[in-house]
Amino acid sequence: MIVILVNPKYSGNVGSVARVMKNFDFEELRIVGSKEIVNNEAYMMAMHAKDILDRAKFYKTFDDAIKDLDFIIATSGARGGDRNLKRVPITPKELAKKILEIKGKIGIVFGREDDGLRNEEIDKCDLLVSIPTSQKYPIMNLSHAVAVILYEIYSTKVENKFLDINIREASKEDKELLIKKFNEFIEKKDLPEHKKELCKIIFKRLVNRAFISGKEAWALMNAFKSD
Amino acid sequence: MIVILVNPKYSGNVGSVARVMKNFDFEELRIVGSKEIVNNEAYMMAMHAKDILDRAKFYKTFDDAIKDLDFIIATSGARGGDRNLKRVPITPKELAKKILEIKGKIGIVFGREDDGLRNEEIDKCDLLVSIPTSQKYPIMNLSHAVAVILYEIYSTKVENKFLDINIREASKEDKELLIKKFNEFIEKKDLPEHKKELCKIIFKRLVNRAFISGKEAWALMNAFKSD
Repeated sequence: MIVILVNPKYSGNVGSVARVMKNFDFEELRIVGSKEIVNNEAYMMAMHAKDILDRAKFYKTFDDAIKDLDFIIATSGARGGDRNLKRVPITPKELAKKILEIKGKIGIVFGREDDGLRNEEIDKCDLLVSIPTSQKYPIMNLSHAVAVILYEIYSTKVENKFLDINIREASKEDKELLIKKFNEFIEKKDLPEHKKELCKIIFKRLVNRAFISGKEAWALMNAFKSD
Repeated sequence: MIVILVNPKYSGNVGSVARVMKNFDFEELRIVGSKEIVNNEAYMMAMHAKDILDRAKFYKTFDDAIKDLDFIIATSGARGGDRNLKRVPITPKELAKKILEIKGKIGIVFGREDDGLRNEEIDKCDLLVSIPTSQKYPIMNLSHAVAVILYEIYSTKVENKFLDINIREASKEDKELLIKKFNEFIEKKDLPEHKKELCKIIFKRLVNRAFISGKEAWALMNAFKSD
């Protein structure tokens, strides 16, 4: 997946974008504009993502930057809503789900810090995505907008990857063993039967709601061993 | 909801955090550290969120900054996973859903740019959240991390605005009493000290993650009464 910045104005933003790309496993950066934007300030902000700036490609026009791509996503901070039908956007969460199904070379396009993308640029894209923001101050910093979009794509991808093997949550067996140990512990207590039952039910609910990990389950079992 | 920065080092980051707070409708900023951090550079990066910097409150210690809060969320870039039991984190998406159910004054704590939060600070919090990032370069810029967390909370809130939210969580006092009873019970057990500590920490996390109701908390206390 390729990140495309259209005429960015501030070198610091370009460096920050490179950093957040690396945080979320994006490698390829394209810039519509001049090479001068990648200066010392950009490298400073990129921190450990300087290689992304080294490999960045530069294009004279928007058309040049997108011509080899199969699917192009435009981003917009404008809350177009129903005012302009050409600009009805989807949310980053919707985008993240759709992207799982798209094949080929995908580009995500971010516009100028002040003006965003132009209508004729958006019209050349296949999808428009917009980050929900407060009406009090909807205009996000460029690298923040990139951070949110790439985060959604990355985290949705990771979630889907591990859907069947949630590394954090305890197995059914671990949880059942913990609940069994608790129940045995409760049975030995001097409590009326109905209170015992209530404790058992609540503890079971607690374990199931809390996303307990396997190691947590085993460590907590110690609490309910008979001395 | 309150954003708390612990000993931020760069004024630019503090300004960027103020901007993204306003983008996502957060108003209250607390800073553990000196007022000098909010200088001209911070104001420049804040853009139209200068009022958030004007109203920021400063604290000498972490404890001072959190003492009036009912629910405190720690953020961490460390990918603790199952390796460190004290630090099993939830995802920003899980956090955003849970936050809908939490009552009272909520604080979200972000650590130092280089070191993050210390273990003893995280232990004072009710939940730990971690942004999934690439193992190649997991360390995010501070304001990017704030952007991702606040975005998740804001967008989930907007999505759920019209849903009937069932508030079922116990008060802070109910939970603390339950945790206290559990700790007293554990102290009497014949277990090595480190296993006792581990059980206490896990039980506290379990209670906080599971959003136990007041009635559940009181019923479960019976389990930990001495016979």
